[in-house]
Amino acid sequence: MNLILLFPNDFTEDRKRVRLEGRRLRHIQQVHRASAGDTLRVGLLGGRMGSGLVIQMNETVLEMEVVLNRDPPPPLPVTLILALPRPKVLRRVLLFASSMGVKRIILLNTWRVEKSFWKSPALQEDKMKESLILGLEQACDTVLPEVRKRPLFKPFVEDELPGIMKGTLPLVAHLGEVKPCPRNLDCSVTLAVGPEGGFIPYEIEKLMECGFQAVVLGERILRVESAVPALLSRLF
Amino acid sequence: MNLILLFPNDFTEDRKRVRLEGRRLRHIQQVHRASAGDTLRVGLLGGRMGSGLVIQMNETVLEMEVVLNRDPPPPLPVTLILALPRPKVLRRVLLFASSMGVKRIILLNTWRVEKSFWKSPALQEDKMKESLILGLEQACDTVLPEVRKRPLFKPFVEDELPGIMKGTLPLVAHLGEVKPCPRNLDCSVTLAVGPEGGFIPYEIEKLMECGFQAVVLGERILRVESAVPALLSRLF
Repeated sequence: MNLILLFPNDFTEDRKRVRLEGRRLRHIQQVHRASAGDTLRVGLLGGRMGSGLVIQMNETVLEMEVVLNRDPPPPLPVTLILALPRPKVLRRVLLFASSMGVKRIILLNTWRVEKSFWKSPALQEDKMKESLILGLEQACDTVLPEVRKRPLFKPFVEDELPGIMKGTLPLVAHLGEVKPCPRNLDCSVTLAVGPEGGFIPYEIEKLMECGFQAVVLGERILRVESAVPALLSRLF
Repeated sequence: MNLILLFPNDFTEDRKRVRLEGRRLRHIQQVHRASAGDTLRVGLLGGRMGSGLVIQMNETVLEMEVVLNRDPPPPLPVTLILALPRPKVLRRVLLFASSMGVKRIILLNTWRVEKSFWKSPALQEDKMKESLILGLEQACDTVLPEVRKRPLFKPFVEDELPGIMKGTLPLVAHLGEVKPCPRNLDCSVTLAVGPEGGFIPYEIEKLMECGFQAVVLGERILRVESAVPALLSRLF
């Protein structure tokens, strides 16, 4: 938690003060080992970042005076389309993507996604929000990514994807004899990442019909958890 | 397991045949759903890669005829010096680094590494080897990375590091007003990555005295698990 993320209802009547309890209080006490007089990095969810001066703190509550005087870092200009990974991996990928500045994530069904993954509690809005917030707190950002679930591949690709990818460079991470993944782009990208085992040929064809280019990171097959940071860091 | 990793004692008297049991047999049955006549990607630990034709398989044992006819992918020209992360993270970072082709990893003590991490069972040779092998099986590689543990920062940096970094570009991942991390290098790199909370100023100074340049990936602070793939993918 490199940034203490604040929510509108943390603020007291005095609009410059916040009161924190629970997870954030414990983290500030146990990890930051802060006490009254210390200053911590803070940010308002969806808003600006700044600093918080600890005014008082006891076992159950902490009061800070906050100044929000700068913008969060710019987002990555990418829409990440991710074949729904297994629940444990989903949590980490959401955290990593959120910490790297991705603001739009689409969880897509593909042939090799196990049906049971769609029933996992990890897909509940509040569970996903937890991972996304951990990512923001890690990276020092305040803008929550939006996550959409798309359990039907074909209608998504045919009806919705053309609108999403408009004006962007659409890339699908693939293996084999395809172009190397481009580096250091300054345009927007729509990036599709397949499941363990990859997209099936039909899915790749559908994406390519839609205008996607297949690109490869290297000879090695990475897990989605490491492929996502590796791809994002190469592209931008 | 995109590659079935073979060990010398898997081979039968007929040097072209292997017999597999346990974890690999189960994986081939349950994930690959292979049966007699199918061909799987195989590789000999520390040796060449190729294909294995399933000759016969039952509940307890599988026999394959293997042809090893190509070299594993080239290693990344990097020595990764990693402040020892917490045990759960260590397992994943070893897996990710191994899958990305890192062949030399040094686990280093720094001020912000918790003492207890050095006593974790995750640091036992066989536990670390498990993660490294999972990485090779994931990425389709056969060359096991070497991991050294260095629980004393100062003697390591003063006595051993100059020899390790000789002829390489020595970089330390840092935050703040430093040079951006270079891209697409074709030289060897010694890359130092700090613990959660970062290296302390004394440690950065010692590394810089030694010749290291501090570089930054971006404004965002990443967890070591995502920082390592992001750095490696940017550098090479």
